[in-house]
Amino acid sequence: MSNANRETKVTKILHDGKHVRLVSRGGWEYAQRKSVTGIVAILAVTDEGKLILVEQYRPPVGKRVIELPAGLAGDVAGQETEELAAAARRELLEETGYEAAEMVYLAEGAASAGITDEVITLFRATGLRKTGAGEGDGSEDIAVHEVPLADVPRWLEERRAGGSLIDLKVYSGLYFASAG
Amino acid sequence: MSNANRETKVTKILHDGKHVRLVSRGGWEYAQRKSVTGIVAILAVTDEGKLILVEQYRPPVGKRVIELPAGLAGDVAGQETEELAAAARRELLEETGYEAAEMVYLAEGAASAGITDEVITLFRATGLRKTGAGEGDGSEDIAVHEVPLADVPRWLEERRAGGSLIDLKVYSGLYFASAG
Repeated sequence: MSNANRETKVTKILHDGKHVRLVSRGGWEYAQRKSVTGIVAILAVTDEGKLILVEQYRPPVGKRVIELPAGLAGDVAGQETEELAAAARRELLEETGYEAAEMVYLAEGAASAGITDEVITLFRATGLRKTGAGEGDGSEDIAVHEVPLADVPRWLEERRAGGSLIDLKVYSGLYFASAG
Repeated sequence: MSNANRETKVTKILHDGKHVRLVSRGGWEYAQRKSVTGIVAILAVTDEGKLILVEQYRPPVGKRVIELPAGLAGDVAGQETEELAAAARRELLEETGYEAAEMVYLAEGAASAGITDEVITLFRATGLRKTGAGEGDGSEDIAVHEVPLADVPRWLEERRAGGSLIDLKVYSGLYFASAG
Protein backbone atom coordinates (compact mmCIF):
# COMPACT_ATOMS: atom_id res chain seq x y z
CA MET A 1 0.00 0.00 0.00
CA SER A 2 1.41 3.39 -0.95
CA ASN A 3 1.76 6.28 1.45
CA ALA A 4 -0.99 8.06 -0.49
CA ASN A 5 -3.39 5.18 0.15
CA ARG A 6 -2.56 5.02 3.82
CA GLU A 7 -2.99 8.76 4.11
CA THR A 8 -6.59 8.63 2.85
CA LYS A 9 -7.53 6.46 5.83
CA VAL A 10 -6.55 9.04 8.44
CA THR A 11 -9.28 11.43 9.52
CA LYS A 12 -8.00 14.57 11.22
CA ILE A 13 -10.30 16.94 13.12
CA LEU A 14 -9.47 20.50 12.03
CA HIS A 15 -12.12 22.13 14.25
CA ASP A 16 -14.58 20.55 16.63
CA GLY A 17 -17.61 22.83 16.68
CA LYS A 18 -20.75 22.52 18.79
CA HIS A 19 -22.91 20.90 16.09
CA VAL A 20 -20.51 20.56 13.16
CA ARG A 21 -16.85 19.63 12.89
CA LEU A 22 -14.48 20.33 10.01
CA VAL A 23 -12.38 17.26 9.23
CA SER A 24 -9.68 16.35 6.75
CA ARG A 25 -9.33 12.90 5.20
CA GLY A 26 -6.40 12.36 2.86
CA GLY A 27 -6.18 16.12 2.43
CA TRP A 28 -9.91 16.37 1.58
CA GLU A 29 -11.70 18.89 3.84
CA TYR A 30 -15.38 18.55 4.70
CA ALA A 31 -18.07 19.23 7.27
CA GLN A 32 -19.35 16.45 9.49
CA ARG A 33 -22.50 16.67 11.59
CA LYS A 34 -22.17 15.63 15.21
CA SER A 35 -24.70 13.61 17.25
CA VAL A 36 -26.87 12.82 14.26
CA THR A 37 -27.80 9.31 13.13
CA GLY A 38 -29.57 10.34 9.94
CA ILE A 39 -31.33 13.07 8.01
CA VAL A 40 -34.83 12.78 6.62
CA ALA A 41 -36.78 14.72 4.00
CA ILE A 42 -40.45 14.27 3.26
CA LEU A 43 -42.41 14.44 0.01
CA ALA A 44 -45.87 15.31 1.30
CA VAL A 45 -48.78 15.78 -1.12
CA THR A 46 -52.23 16.42 0.33
CA ASP A 47 -55.37 14.60 -0.84
CA GLU A 48 -56.15 17.80 -2.79
CA GLY A 49 -52.88 17.37 -4.75
CA LYS A 50 -50.96 20.15 -3.02
CA LEU A 51 -47.23 19.82 -2.32
CA ILE A 52 -46.26 20.96 1.16
CA LEU A 53 -43.10 23.08 1.21
CA VAL A 54 -41.37 24.96 4.01
CA GLU A 55 -39.42 28.19 3.89
CA GLN A 56 -36.91 29.45 6.42
CA TYR A 57 -33.89 31.72 6.66
CA ARG A 58 -30.63 29.79 6.24
CA PRO A 59 -27.52 31.62 7.52
CA PRO A 60 -25.06 29.66 5.29
CA VAL A 61 -26.63 31.11 2.12
CA GLY A 62 -27.98 34.32 3.70
CA LYS A 63 -31.43 33.84 2.19
CA ARG A 64 -34.80 32.30 2.86
CA VAL A 65 -34.76 28.81 1.36
CA ILE A 66 -37.72 26.80 0.09
CA GLU A 67 -37.31 23.14 0.96
CA LEU A 68 -39.09 19.87 1.45
CA PRO A 69 -39.94 19.39 5.13
CA ALA A 70 -36.81 17.82 6.64
CA GLY A 71 -34.88 17.30 9.81
CA LEU A 72 -32.30 15.40 11.77
CA ALA A 73 -32.75 12.01 13.36
CA GLY A 74 -31.01 11.13 16.58
CA ASP A 75 -30.44 14.68 17.72
CA VAL A 76 -33.00 14.57 20.54
CA ALA A 77 -31.49 13.28 23.79
CA GLY A 78 -32.88 9.86 24.60
CA GLN A 79 -34.15 9.34 21.04
CA GLU A 80 -30.81 8.61 19.34
CA THR A 81 -32.04 5.28 18.07
CA GLU A 82 -35.42 6.42 16.78
CA GLU A 83 -36.23 5.00 13.39
CA LEU A 84 -35.83 7.27 10.41
CA ALA A 85 -39.50 6.94 9.51
CA ALA A 86 -40.44 8.05 13.02
CA ALA A 87 -38.13 11.03 12.65
CA ALA A 88 -39.84 11.86 9.36
CA ARG A 89 -43.26 11.77 11.08
CA ARG A 90 -42.02 13.99 13.90
CA GLU A 91 -40.38 16.53 11.58
CA LEU A 92 -43.41 16.69 9.26
CA LEU A 93 -45.72 17.38 12.20
CA GLU A 94 -43.37 19.91 13.84
CA GLU A 95 -42.71 21.85 10.67
CA THR A 96 -46.07 21.65 8.89
CA GLY A 97 -48.70 20.51 11.39
CA TYR A 98 -49.58 17.45 9.28
CA GLU A 99 -49.81 13.87 10.52
CA ALA A 100 -49.28 11.11 7.97
CA ALA A 101 -51.14 7.79 7.82
CA GLU A 102 -48.20 6.25 5.98
CA MET A 103 -44.51 7.12 5.63
CA VAL A 104 -42.96 5.18 2.74
CA TYR A 105 -39.25 5.01 1.85
CA LEU A 106 -38.46 6.55 -1.56
CA ALA A 107 -34.70 6.97 -1.84
CA GLU A 108 -31.47 7.57 0.04
CA GLY A 109 -28.69 9.76 -1.19
CA ALA A 110 -26.00 12.35 -0.68
CA ALA A 111 -26.75 16.07 -0.54
CA SER A 112 -23.29 17.27 -1.58
CA ALA A 113 -20.71 14.53 -1.10
CA GLY A 114 -17.76 16.80 -1.93
CA ILE A 115 -18.16 18.96 1.15
CA THR A 116 -20.36 17.18 3.71
CA ASP A 117 -21.04 13.67 4.97
CA GLU A 118 -24.81 14.26 4.89
CA VAL A 119 -26.87 11.32 3.63
CA ILE A 120 -30.58 12.01 3.36
CA THR A 121 -33.40 9.51 3.39
CA LEU A 122 -36.42 10.65 1.42
CA PHE A 123 -39.89 9.48 2.42
CA ARG A 124 -43.31 9.87 0.84
CA ALA A 125 -46.02 10.84 3.34
CA THR A 126 -49.57 9.87 2.46
CA GLY A 127 -52.94 10.12 4.18
CA LEU A 128 -52.19 13.60 5.47
CA ARG A 129 -54.32 15.14 8.19
CA LYS A 130 -53.70 18.59 9.64
CA THR A 131 -53.65 18.33 13.43
CA GLY A 132 -51.24 21.05 14.52
CA ALA A 133 -49.95 24.50 13.71
CA GLY A 134 -46.54 23.45 12.42
CA GLU A 135 -43.93 26.15 11.84
CA GLY A 136 -41.17 24.56 13.88
CA ASP A 137 -40.18 23.49 17.36
CA GLY A 138 -39.94 27.00 18.79
CA SER A 139 -36.30 27.59 17.82
CA GLU A 140 -37.26 27.70 14.15
CA ASP A 141 -39.13 30.36 12.13
CA ILE A 142 -40.76 28.34 9.38
CA ALA A 143 -43.37 29.37 6.82
CA VAL A 144 -45.50 26.57 5.37
CA HIS A 145 -46.67 26.66 1.74
CA GLU A 146 -49.20 24.39 0.07
CA VAL A 147 -48.94 24.60 -3.71
CA PRO A 148 -50.94 22.61 -6.30
CA LEU A 149 -48.43 20.21 -7.89
CA ALA A 150 -48.94 21.50 -11.43
CA ASP A 151 -48.23 25.07 -10.27
CA VAL A 152 -45.04 24.28 -8.35
CA PRO A 153 -42.44 24.95 -11.12
CA ARG A 154 -43.93 28.39 -11.91
CA TRP A 155 -44.39 29.17 -8.20
CA LEU A 156 -40.75 28.31 -7.49
CA GLU A 157 -39.56 30.65 -10.25
CA GLU A 158 -41.70 33.45 -8.81
CA ARG A 159 -40.25 32.91 -5.35
CA ARG A 160 -36.72 32.82 -6.76
CA ALA A 161 -37.35 36.08 -8.61
CA GLY A 162 -38.53 37.46 -5.27
CA GLY A 163 -35.21 36.66 -3.59
CA SER A 164 -35.77 33.23 -2.06
CA LEU A 165 -33.50 30.34 -2.87
CA ILE A 166 -34.79 26.88 -3.82
CA ASP A 167 -33.31 23.71 -2.37
CA LEU A 168 -32.56 21.46 -5.35
CA LYS A 169 -34.10 18.50 -3.48
CA VAL A 170 -37.49 20.11 -4.14
CA TYR A 171 -36.98 19.07 -7.78
CA SER A 172 -36.05 15.55 -6.63
CA GLY A 173 -39.38 15.54 -4.84
CA LEU A 174 -41.16 16.66 -8.01
CA TYR A 175 -39.55 13.74 -9.84
CA PHE A 176 -40.91 11.24 -7.32
CA ALA A 177 -44.30 12.99 -7.27
CA SER A 178 -44.56 12.61 -11.05
CA ALA A 179 -43.16 9.05 -10.97
CA GLY A 180 -46.25 8.23 -8.87
CA MET B 1 -32.03 46.16 16.90
CA SER B 2 -31.61 43.49 19.57
CA ASN B 3 -28.29 41.90 20.48
CA ALA B 4 -29.52 38.67 18.96
CA ASN B 5 -30.14 40.37 15.63
CA ARG B 6 -26.75 42.05 15.64
CA GLU B 7 -25.10 38.75 16.51
CA THR B 8 -26.47 37.03 13.40
CA LYS B 9 -24.58 39.52 11.23
CA VAL B 10 -21.15 38.57 12.56
CA THR B 11 -19.34 35.80 10.69
CA LYS B 12 -16.56 34.16 12.68
CA ILE B 13 -13.97 31.90 11.04
CA LEU B 14 -13.60 28.80 13.22
CA HIS B 15 -11.01 27.15 10.96
CA ASP B 16 -9.48 28.39 7.73
CA GLY B 17 -8.64 25.27 5.70
CA LYS B 18 -6.90 25.05 2.35
CA HIS B 19 -10.09 24.71 0.26
CA VAL B 20 -12.87 24.93 2.85
CA ARG B 21 -13.37 27.02 5.95
CA LEU B 22 -15.68 26.34 8.87
CA VAL B 23 -17.50 29.50 9.91
CA SER B 24 -20.07 30.48 12.51
CA ARG B 25 -22.78 33.05 11.92
CA GLY B 26 -25.06 33.84 14.83
CA GLY B 27 -24.04 30.53 16.39
CA TRP B 28 -24.84 28.61 13.19
CA GLU B 29 -21.85 26.53 12.01
CA TYR B 30 -21.31 25.72 8.36
CA ALA B 31 -18.75 24.98 5.66
CA GLN B 32 -17.79 27.64 3.15
CA ARG B 33 -15.86 26.98 -0.06
CA LYS B 34 -12.90 29.25 -0.73
CA SER B 35 -11.86 30.70 -4.11
CA VAL B 36 -15.01 29.53 -5.87
CA THR B 37 -17.42 31.82 -7.71
CA GLY B 38 -20.05 29.16 -8.46
CA ILE B 39 -20.83 25.49 -8.80
CA VAL B 40 -22.34 23.94 -11.91
CA ALA B 41 -24.08 20.63 -12.59
CA ILE B 42 -25.05 19.38 -16.02
CA LEU B 43 -28.04 17.38 -17.22
CA ALA B 44 -26.63 15.73 -20.34
CA VAL B 45 -28.78 13.40 -22.44
CA THR B 46 -27.29 12.03 -25.66
CA ASP B 47 -29.17 12.02 -28.98
CA GLU B 48 -29.77 8.29 -28.27
CA GLY B 49 -31.65 9.22 -25.08
CA LYS B 50 -28.93 8.17 -22.65
CA LEU B 51 -28.30 10.10 -19.44
CA ILE B 52 -24.61 10.69 -18.74
CA LEU B 53 -23.66 10.09 -15.12
CA VAL B 54 -20.31 10.10 -13.36
CA GLU B 55 -19.14 8.01 -10.42
CA GLN B 56 -16.24 8.76 -8.11
CA TYR B 57 -15.06 8.03 -4.58
CA ARG B 58 -16.08 10.77 -2.17
CA PRO B 59 -14.11 10.85 1.11
CA PRO B 60 -16.84 12.70 3.07
CA VAL B 61 -19.27 9.76 2.70
CA GLY B 62 -16.63 7.04 2.27
CA LYS B 63 -18.33 5.61 -0.81
CA ARG B 64 -18.37 5.87 -4.57
CA VAL B 65 -21.09 8.38 -5.46
CA ILE B 66 -23.12 8.54 -8.67
CA GLU B 67 -23.71 12.16 -9.70
CA LEU B 68 -24.56 14.47 -12.54
CA PRO B 69 -21.36 15.81 -14.12
CA ALA B 70 -20.46 18.86 -12.02
CA GLY B 71 -17.67 21.12 -10.95
CA LEU B 72 -16.49 24.40 -9.56
CA ALA B 73 -16.32 27.69 -11.41
CA GLY B 74 -13.62 30.21 -10.66
CA ASP B 75 -11.18 27.75 -9.11
CA VAL B 76 -8.71 27.84 -12.00
CA ALA B 77 -6.13 30.63 -11.60
CA GLY B 78 -6.74 33.32 -14.20
CA GLN B 79 -10.27 32.08 -14.95
CA GLU B 80 -12.04 33.39 -11.83
CA THR B 81 -14.52 35.35 -13.89
CA GLU B 82 -15.39 32.66 -16.41
CA GLU B 83 -19.08 32.40 -17.04
CA LEU B 84 -20.96 29.58 -15.38
CA ALA B 85 -22.01 28.15 -18.73
CA ALA B 86 -18.38 28.04 -19.81
CA ALA B 87 -17.51 26.23 -16.59
CA ALA B 88 -20.30 23.75 -17.33
CA ARG B 89 -18.86 23.11 -20.81
CA ARG B 90 -15.37 22.63 -19.40
CA GLU B 91 -16.50 20.28 -16.62
CA LEU B 92 -18.67 18.20 -18.95
CA LEU B 93 -15.75 17.74 -21.35
CA GLU B 94 -13.21 17.03 -18.60
CA GLU B 95 -15.38 14.53 -16.78
CA THR B 96 -17.20 12.80 -19.65
CA GLY B 97 -15.38 13.65 -22.91
CA TYR B 98 -18.53 15.23 -24.38
CA GLU B 99 -18.76 18.62 -26.05
CA ALA B 100 -22.16 20.32 -26.08
CA ALA B 101 -23.60 22.42 -28.91
CA GLU B 102 -25.80 24.24 -26.38
CA MET B 103 -25.68 24.78 -22.63
CA VAL B 104 -29.06 26.03 -21.36
CA TYR B 105 -29.83 27.29 -17.83
CA LEU B 106 -32.37 25.11 -16.00
CA ALA B 107 -32.35 26.09 -12.33
CA GLU B 108 -30.29 27.44 -9.46
CA GLY B 109 -30.51 26.19 -5.92
CA ALA B 110 -28.97 25.16 -2.64
CA ALA B 111 -27.46 21.73 -2.09
CA SER B 112 -27.83 21.68 1.68
CA ALA B 113 -28.36 25.17 3.06
CA GLY B 114 -28.19 24.05 6.69
CA ILE B 115 -24.52 23.11 6.55
CA THR B 116 -22.90 24.67 3.46
CA ASP B 117 -23.07 27.85 1.41
CA GLU B 118 -23.06 25.88 -1.85
CA VAL B 119 -25.41 27.20 -4.53
CA ILE B 120 -25.51 25.10 -7.68
CA THR B 121 -26.52 26.19 -11.15
CA LEU B 122 -28.01 23.39 -13.22
CA PHE B 123 -27.62 23.41 -17.00
CA ARG B 124 -29.02 21.23 -19.75
CA ALA B 125 -26.43 20.21 -22.37
CA THR B 126 -27.73 19.38 -25.83
CA GLY B 127 -26.14 18.48 -29.17
CA LEU B 128 -23.60 16.22 -27.48
CA ARG B 129 -20.57 15.00 -29.39
CA LYS B 130 -17.89 12.77 -27.87
CA THR B 131 -14.51 14.31 -28.58
CA GLY B 132 -12.37 13.28 -25.61
CA ALA B 133 -11.76 10.51 -23.10
CA GLY B 134 -13.29 12.28 -20.10
CA GLU B 135 -12.72 10.76 -16.65
CA GLY B 136 -11.33 13.85 -14.98
CA ASP B 137 -8.49 16.33 -15.04
CA GLY B 138 -5.83 13.89 -13.87
CA SER B 139 -6.38 14.46 -10.14
CA GLU B 140 -9.77 12.72 -10.35
CA ASP B 141 -10.70 9.05 -10.83
CA ILE B 142 -14.06 9.25 -12.53
CA ALA B 143 -16.10 6.49 -14.18
CA VAL B 144 -18.58 7.60 -16.84
CA HIS B 145 -21.93 5.84 -17.27
CA GLU B 146 -24.41 6.25 -20.10
CA VAL B 147 -27.81 4.89 -19.14
CA PRO B 148 -31.03 4.95 -21.22
CA LEU B 149 -33.33 7.42 -19.45
CA ALA B 150 -36.13 4.91 -18.86
CA ASP B 151 -33.69 2.51 -17.19
CA VAL B 152 -32.11 5.06 -14.84
CA PRO B 153 -34.34 4.52 -11.75
CA ARG B 154 -33.80 0.71 -11.82
CA TRP B 155 -30.09 1.14 -12.61
CA LEU B 156 -29.66 3.51 -9.65
CA GLU B 157 -31.29 1.02 -7.28
CA GLU B 158 -28.94 -1.72 -8.56
CA ARG B 159 -25.90 0.49 -8.00
CA ARG B 160 -27.13 1.42 -4.53
CA ALA B 161 -27.62 -2.27 -3.69
CA GLY B 162 -24.04 -2.76 -4.89
CA GLY B 163 -22.70 -0.23 -2.36
CA SER B 164 -22.60 3.03 -4.30
CA LEU B 165 -24.39 6.12 -3.06
CA ILE B 166 -26.63 8.27 -5.27
CA ASP B 167 -26.43 12.07 -5.22
CA LEU B 168 -30.02 13.27 -4.80
CA LYS B 169 -29.47 15.87 -7.55
CA VAL B 170 -29.58 12.96 -10.02
CA TYR B 171 -33.32 12.81 -9.28
CA SER B 172 -33.56 16.58 -9.81
CA GLY B 173 -32.02 15.93 -13.22
CA LEU B 174 -34.57 13.20 -13.93
CA TYR B 175 -37.32 15.71 -13.13
CA PHE B 176 -35.99 18.20 -15.68
CA ALA B 177 -35.38 15.41 -18.21
CA SER B 178 -39.02 14.36 -17.94
CA ALA B 179 -40.27 17.98 -17.88
CA GLY B 180 -38.77 18.23 -21.41
